[in-house]
Amino acid sequence: MISGASRAVETENAMTTAHRVLNFSAGPAVLPEPVLDQIQRDLIALPGVGMSILEISHRSKVFEGILDQADADLRTLASIPANYKLLFLQGGASLQFSMVPMNLLGAGQTADYIDAGTWGEKAIAEARKVGTVNVAASTKSDNYSRLPRQSELKLTPGAAYVHMTSNNTIEGTEYKTLPQIGDVPLVSDNSSDIFSGPIDISRHALIYAGAQKNIGPAGITLVIIREDLLARSAANQTLPTMLNYSVHAQNMSLYNTPTTFGIYAVGLVAKWLLGLGGLSAIGAINERKAGKLYAEIDRSGFYRGTANKEDRSLMNVTFRLPSEALESMFVKQATAAGLDGLKGHRMVGGMRASIYNAFPESGVDTLVSFMQEFERTNG
Amino acid sequence: MISGASRAVETENAMTTAHRVLNFSAGPAVLPEPVLDQIQRDLIALPGVGMSILEISHRSKVFEGILDQADADLRTLASIPANYKLLFLQGGASLQFSMVPMNLLGAGQTADYIDAGTWGEKAIAEARKVGTVNVAASTKSDNYSRLPRQSELKLTPGAAYVHMTSNNTIEGTEYKTLPQIGDVPLVSDNSSDIFSGPIDISRHALIYAGAQKNIGPAGITLVIIREDLLARSAANQTLPTMLNYSVHAQNMSLYNTPTTFGIYAVGLVAKWLLGLGGLSAIGAINERKAGKLYAEIDRSGFYRGTANKEDRSLMNVTFRLPSEALESMFVKQATAAGLDGLKGHRMVGGMRASIYNAFPESGVDTLVSFMQEFERTNG
Repeated sequence: MISGASRAVETENAMTTAHRVLNFSAGPAVLPEPVLDQIQRDLIALPGVGMSILEISHRSKVFEGILDQADADLRTLASIPANYKLLFLQGGASLQFSMVPMNLLGAGQTADYIDAGTWGEKAIAEARKVGTVNVAASTKSDNYSRLPRQSELKLTPGAAYVHMTSNNTIEGTEYKTLPQIGDVPLVSDNSSDIFSGPIDISRHALIYAGAQKNIGPAGITLVIIREDLLARSAANQTLPTMLNYSVHAQNMSLYNTPTTFGIYAVGLVAKWLLGLGGLSAIGAINERKAGKLYAEIDRSGFYRGTANKEDRSLMNVTFRLPSEALESMFVKQATAAGLDGLKGHRMVGGMRASIYNAFPESGVDTLVSFMQEFERTNG
Repeated sequence: MISGASRAVETENAMTTAHRVLNFSAGPAVLPEPVLDQIQRDLIALPGVGMSILEISHRSKVFEGILDQADADLRTLASIPANYKLLFLQGGASLQFSMVPMNLLGAGQTADYIDAGTWGEKAIAEARKVGTVNVAASTKSDNYSRLPRQSELKLTPGAAYVHMTSNNTIEGTEYKTLPQIGDVPLVSDNSSDIFSGPIDISRHALIYAGAQKNIGPAGITLVIIREDLLARSAANQTLPTMLNYSVHAQNMSLYNTPTTFGIYAVGLVAKWLLGLGGLSAIGAINERKAGKLYAEIDRSGFYRGTANKEDRSLMNVTFRLPSEALESMFVKQATAAGLDGLKGHRMVGGMRASIYNAFPESGVDTLVSFMQEFERTNG
């Protein structure tokens, strides 16, 4: 075991020499440096507590305070109305693909799904194990390069809910305005763009998101659910307790041991976003970051965006080069230059720059310069 | 944002002044200090990687290396045979209460459950939602103060499996030898004593454990499953994908984004245990720690153990004082003296000292001295 003094010196060395690369990964993704700093500083013992956040009981007053503060800060951040509950769960969006229909799709009902990307397709496959699914629209035949238009939606009157994916991480498309679906509850997978800009929670019935792109580390899942939907779960006696939204809501996410560290980290990210000025402020930054990249793509005949222009994502910027050979070279040289994670998903090919909330604008500038230099050399 | 230099200074201050209390919490619980040190040191950027463990892609070579190493170290630590898979999941033991029967209890089959504590009771309630349960024995009428004897077990010939809880966190009982159940697969919830001493994995078909007591932070669940059991899950087309053991086994726990940080932390704890000398070494330490506490309880007429002597847990030492007024005073004075988390579960009352792997022996000595002093003053 290392002594206290040498520990401190080693940490100082690690911190001053820590070389941070530019992380364009699609998720888990870059976190705000002030958040990492605070986690590091308080890791051995939370100030005044004498234990690490990794060690404290989820039933302790200290942790209750951390949970309540995270809840309050997220409510302030996104103006979440009082008739919505926040649940801090585990299992990622992939478990929500099953929990949503298990809780909300009753016998004899139909759920409408908008099929606009690979993750929505997976959500549909899980829902079909539970009940009747109507695919209201699909852009699969266009390789999901665009979102379905309002006029294409074939909605079921009285559907249990309509499911959508707000941002398609793989294909690089993102909703700018919500689809019109009347009075039917809207359920949205916001994993890859949650809290990246202003959002009208009241137009949703349920929002879910894995935290690992915009709001925290992997291993924590946020669910925002309108209270009236909980009655559907509460009435269901055969649902596994851990998959029942009403159980988690009644127990304030403390039915069993939650991911205490994940909740702490999400709370720190919420505070960081509030400090920046909230969702309008981060939205403006994200518009500017993506705008610079798309401008470079459109300026050049060398790079080519893969997503339909009006559907382009502010979070995941997908583009291709004139040849696969050049794409390989681009990835290789970018990685060597400290620009990591730019290889696109194998389903789309080419490049993908994921530039979530915590990705610094200066990093986008570095990528634009790199793209210009690469074009100059290889164009 | 804090500059690099002042950050380092602040961290040094935090580290040298960090006051650590003695954490007797039942879980989440104390972690090894060298593990906390390493997490802190490398938090901003893993050496040679340039990103935090909280930021790296689960599909990256670096993370694959971390996952493979954790798997290998756990296999070495517990001599896990090659025909067992290790799964790193989420949702805690509470989700396993459902996953076990959903994966292993077929239509027309019966599962035997040994009801020896509060957590086993919860497991039974979830299994009953899935299929037919036979309670093979119960000590509920004894307030779970003892484990069922072998002669009390009423086993079902050809049962799908027998379920047991290896250590009862709330009631302070622990199996010293496994029940004899013939050829039926043994499924065990080892959440509160996993890797606290030598274990014969080959006598189990499936072991599961939330990590937050003996092997890591909250938010990661370890499952050790014999490969032949996976066929039952693989054949099940209606099981939600995220609840299917065979999916996680086929994808090496990377079907979706796992808790990357949790896997990293469990890997560090495994390395720490190997460094101590493995499970025999930690087993001897745990025997010694619990032995000191039980000796003090038995020496005095003042303190009284609540669990049947031969079933006493090495992990959770439960005891009472002559009156509830004295118990309240004990908790209050202990907390003030830096001995935190000693209040027993409301179902048992009195005190509970949880002294998992990472709880230091010197902390047990401190508690024994405190108990002697308290008795001298109030006995």
